[in-house]
Amino acid sequence: MNSDNSSLAAPAIVVLAAGKGTRMKSDLHKVLHPVAGRPMLEHLLANAAQLAPERTVLVAGHGREQLEAALGERATIAVQEPQLGTGHAVQQAQEALAGFEGDVLILYGDVPFVRAETMQAMIARLHEDDAPAVVVLGFEPEDPLRYGRVLAHEDGRIAMMVEYKDATEEQRACRLCNSGLMAVRAADLFDLLSKIGNDNAQGEYYLVDIVNVANLEGRTCAVIVTDDPDEVGGINSRAELAAAEGRWQQRRREQAMADGATLIAPETVFFAWDTQIGRDVTIEPNVVFGPGVSVADHVTIHAFSHLEGATLESGVAIGPYARLRPGAVLRRNSKVGNFVEIKKAVLGEGAKANHLSYLGDATIGAGANIGAGTITCNYDGYFKYKTEIGERAFIGSNSALIAPVKIGADAIVAAGSAVTRNVADGELRLVRGEQLVKPGWADRFHDAMKKKKSEG
Amino acid sequence: MNSDNSSLAAPAIVVLAAGKGTRMKSDLHKVLHPVAGRPMLEHLLANAAQLAPERTVLVAGHGREQLEAALGERATIAVQEPQLGTGHAVQQAQEALAGFEGDVLILYGDVPFVRAETMQAMIARLHEDDAPAVVVLGFEPEDPLRYGRVLAHEDGRIAMMVEYKDATEEQRACRLCNSGLMAVRAADLFDLLSKIGNDNAQGEYYLVDIVNVANLEGRTCAVIVTDDPDEVGGINSRAELAAAEGRWQQRRREQAMADGATLIAPETVFFAWDTQIGRDVTIEPNVVFGPGVSVADHVTIHAFSHLEGATLESGVAIGPYARLRPGAVLRRNSKVGNFVEIKKAVLGEGAKANHLSYLGDATIGAGANIGAGTITCNYDGYFKYKTEIGERAFIGSNSALIAPVKIGADAIVAAGSAVTRNVADGELRLVRGEQLVKPGWADRFHDAMKKKKSEG
Amino acid sequence: MNSDNSSLAAPAIVVLAAGKGTRMKSDLHKVLHPVAGRPMLEHLLANAAQLAPERTVLVAGHGREQLEAALGERATIAVQEPQLGTGHAVQQAQEALAGFEGDVLILYGDVPFVRAETMQAMIARLHEDDAPAVVVLGFEPEDPLRYGRVLAHEDGRIAMMVEYKDATEEQRACRLCNSGLMAVRAADLFDLLSKIGNDNAQGEYYLVDIVNVANLEGRTCAVIVTDDPDEVGGINSRAELAAAEGRWQQRRREQAMADGATLIAPETVFFAWDTQIGRDVTIEPNVVFGPGVSVADHVTIHAFSHLEGATLESGVAIGPYARLRPGAVLRRNSKVGNFVEIKKAVLGEGAKANHLSYLGDATIGAGANIGAGTITCNYDGYFKYKTEIGERAFIGSNSALIAPVKIGADAIVAAGSAVTRNVADGELRLVRGEQLVKPGWADRFHDAMKKKKSEG
Repeated sequence: MNSDNSSLAAPAIVVLAAGKGTRMKSDLHKVLHPVAGRPMLEHLLANAAQLAPERTVLVAGHGREQLEAALGERATIAVQEPQLGTGHAVQQAQEALAGFEGDVLILYGDVPFVRAETMQAMIARLHEDDAPAVVVLGFEPEDPLRYGRVLAHEDGRIAMMVEYKDATEEQRACRLCNSGLMAVRAADLFDLLSKIGNDNAQGEYYLVDIVNVANLEGRTCAVIVTDDPDEVGGINSRAELAAAEGRWQQRRREQAMADGATLIAPETVFFAWDTQIGRDVTIEPNVVFGPGVSVADHVTIHAFSHLEGATLESGVAIGPYARLRPGAVLRRNSKVGNFVEIKKAVLGEGAKANHLSYLGDATIGAGANIGAGTITCNYDGYFKYKTEIGERAFIGSNSALIAPVKIGADAIVAAGSAVTRNVADGELRLVRGEQLVKPGWADRFHDAMKKKKSEG
Repeated sequence: MNSDNSSLAAPAIVVLAAGKGTRMKSDLHKVLHPVAGRPMLEHLLANAAQLAPERTVLVAGHGREQLEAALGERATIAVQEPQLGTGHAVQQAQEALAGFEGDVLILYGDVPFVRAETMQAMIARLHEDDAPAVVVLGFEPEDPLRYGRVLAHEDGRIAMMVEYKDATEEQRACRLCNSGLMAVRAADLFDLLSKIGNDNAQGEYYLVDIVNVANLEGRTCAVIVTDDPDEVGGINSRAELAAAEGRWQQRRREQAMADGATLIAPETVFFAWDTQIGRDVTIEPNVVFGPGVSVADHVTIHAFSHLEGATLESGVAIGPYARLRPGAVLRRNSKVGNFVEIKKAVLGEGAKANHLSYLGDATIGAGANIGAGTITCNYDGYFKYKTEIGERAFIGSNSALIAPVKIGADAIVAAGSAVTRNVADGELRLVRGEQLVKPGWADRFHDAMKKKKSEG
Repeated sequence: MNSDNSSLAAPAIVVLAAGKGTRMKSDLHKVLHPVAGRPMLEHLLANAAQLAPERTVLVAGHGREQLEAALGERATIAVQEPQLGTGHAVQQAQEALAGFEGDVLILYGDVPFVRAETMQAMIARLHEDDAPAVVVLGFEPEDPLRYGRVLAHEDGRIAMMVEYKDATEEQRACRLCNSGLMAVRAADLFDLLSKIGNDNAQGEYYLVDIVNVANLEGRTCAVIVTDDPDEVGGINSRAELAAAEGRWQQRRREQAMADGATLIAPETVFFAWDTQIGRDVTIEPNVVFGPGVSVADHVTIHAFSHLEGATLESGVAIGPYARLRPGAVLRRNSKVGNFVEIKKAVLGEGAKANHLSYLGDATIGAGANIGAGTITCNYDGYFKYKTEIGERAFIGSNSALIAPVKIGADAIVAAGSAVTRNVADGELRLVRGEQLVKPGWADRFHDAMKKKKSEG
């Protein structure tokens, strides 16, 4: 999105992430669980980054060490301990926001797919003529369930926020729900927060109460409504995580098709958050993309392929059962076939590795042919070593190239060779034992074994 | 389920399985077709076993040899020949139930997912104060289609059972359908069955008629209604089999997620009936579990993996494209990579087999590293032999370990070796032919072949 | 279908395929995009072929070279340049239809799944007593969207064709839509086309206007309505292509199940247009069929298998991860295991290739056992050569069979051998280097490397 945010001062972002995430049943902090190969918190921060926030504060409780490790310097961590409700959580950000006088946008680490334009619209609304004290993001789900309701006037001014359990039947009939996201000026925020109470069953301070407090003070509060209720969907369980992943994938697939890729069975193709797919790319059923993959135009990805950190240039064909790991670079028109693993290796233009091979820490020249069962022995248990294969070299099947080793241009390695020394350009290297022939031996063996088997 | 069945005497189970199963178009008996890797009949018997039945009788017709082979001593087979309807089928169980005076629960081999608590509730209902002669299990499907209807009073007493084709429009408007399952005291059962007729278009004896007979005699008959219509779904075709499998998988996936496993794309993960999955397990898309798999906590199963009879301890990571066969035991933090097959083999703690290997009938010590393309040659066409690999041993790529053979601790097998004799601890074993070098040979070969090709 | 078309003269087929297909964003002509492994145009022509058309004319515009290459002599290509609407498109077929006096059926290259019986019914309708000038194929979609409407009398006579944008609210309420397909006598067709105008916003000649022209002339026009709106679904984008593929697959899966195959997860099995599947075939999740596969009865296809151009005889079992390429012939009860690729090779009765192998350009005798990691080296970079393996031969693991080469019946190739010369019947061939033993070497190596690592 390219919203024009030049007219507004940079906001501060407060991300609430202090919940226990009990329903996830995980040792990993809830907001670090990935969707499309990327922690949900990172999805949220990436969207928020489009607002170029002046400060980012993360309110953490349980598992905050994990959050600190994940965020590094990118956010200030404010600790909420004990956890006394969402209002109390936001209060913990006060110190980190000391001196900040702009707008504060309150987000939730487990509501990761709020779009930047929605965030922007919330802040913009703060600056409209009626200058609301609080802007609430509302949504209208198909089934409003037990969400808190936003009772608002036609013009978006909020009459009252009401929790589902406290709502009358009439109030419950209102389908406009509270997403929990709010935009508030910093000064207003902490003033209002200081006035809310915890006189409720849980004894907690609820952020939503700042709206009612502001209303009591005669301040205007406003709701804006997202046109996509999915963007405010929270993730509280693995099932909700899977559902969010499913929605994300569905959109990404539609985008890939709209951009000119054929997905024979879109529902079986799984993209990562940063997958790049060109035009006239064909993706057969059952393909999984990990992060860091870039696929140029006119590429064919056959079924059951798994790609991660790989670059596929134009005209490339891979699979079925191709496994491309980080650092795999497939130059134009190169080909990777079945049961082939490529890791940190460049396959030159038009080169082929069609069957049952492992190519790691290697450069393969243009037009080279890697026979079935070829393995680059790149590891001695302690260090990794490089294999260099020249242009148009022919590596016979079942060869082991014991790195570090160089195979020259146009060189041939005979099938079954374990190559430990460099092979010069145009040279043949053959590493092979004697052909021992024992006529009749097999017949005698069969007889003996059949006898043994019948006795056994 | 843990229903309290202590107060009730052990029932007898009669399972009807005499139908031809024509729509399955199969040589395999319908009730032996598997769901989640287990014959549907076994699902049903496992549920029934929770009632600790005193006797189990299976009424068989076509293909009863298959049923006998499958059941062994676990049930008495009563033969229905010819097949004259469900009432007639149950009558065939009379001999097997001779002397039994308790409750009889009538089940169907092709209605395999009836829960034990439902069975229990049917029997319990028999013993309520009004002492019904027959308890019928009813269900309310979304679309009642052409099921027979149960016309019942508010209190569950049955006014009449009516077949769809005989029902009036008003009767058809009733959505309470007859599942066919019944609970009856043994004495009542055969008395009532002796009074039903076959005066209908098919000339068959219908079990359902015992209700109407009992009613005519002034006995009370009662219906209880399942809250899950799916549990009485019958399987009569491969499409219904697939649908049942789909429902089963869907529930199992939800359970796995609720228990703390991440299923990135739940719809692509297929469990077996006895799969055990721990907490903080991540399962990538497209993973298939056969029977007998146990996965501990903190395990990662990458895409396209296939597991059967395997044990994965904590911290293990496998795949993509890992194929674990029965007897694969992966100790803590061990790792199995792509295109690797493990069969009857123990991979020690922290050991790795990352690429293109077959490990069968083997024990691999802790910390060992199995190079790409390693194969345990465990079979000579007649017998299987064992391979033992010591702790921290390093097996170079493309090695063939020709069993029986032992590789010592800290030993190294050089890449490309075919090892036929034991390797001692700390020893290097290298089996390799001479490196034959033919400078310029490849260049001359290329020239000759290009010429031949241009001529050909 | 087997409609009786004996009483009707052979029609001419006009297929419109001049559209740009802009939304596909493809260099490939829209109508050549495949569904179920076959270009959509071929699906359409195969259905039309059941009418034994006397002439087939394809009206092409953009990308007609691709169409010419695809069709060869099977159709006359009429060029529409510039593209001035569907009516104008059909006019371009006039020359190719010169002298033809029969019925003309107008089809669309991007509406590929119209059934032959529907086409037949359209032509038959032309010959009913009221002798309509034009027969229109109508359909009643669930959501009529912005399709043009067919305003028709009860008896099927058309009162008026109206474009959505020109329709009144009342007309829009009519759910009978125009598929665009028409049947017209050749003489009528070009007469009516000569009378339509292009007085509309786009300045185009619309085929639909021939109905209104005929009506004005007092001629009867008739609509017949398909009972399957899906058959007239157009494919204008990759998303619609995927949706068409999905519908096709869904029907094919249902058919396979009805015919007696078990599909554990039907939604994960992808057939090609010509796949043949027998009875009591079990297909595990995630199996992809390319064109040309025939599977006999009692075959098991395990998960993650990929088949193309392969023949599987009765009793065969393959996979998981079996990759069968064109020319793979698996004789009765043979077995192909995991990570095995078979190309142009016959696996004899009961023969086994269970692990990590590549068998190409080969014949394998009955009962032969192909060890893990066996590779037929069939290619020298220029030519392909054949491998012949005799009955009951045993190929040890990790062997390379360097073609051309013959392995005799009952012969044994020792594990790890690179075989370059023929092996006679009952002979043992062993190609292996010396076993070099270096006691203590590995220990010294470990010490040195650990030191280096700790320093590095």
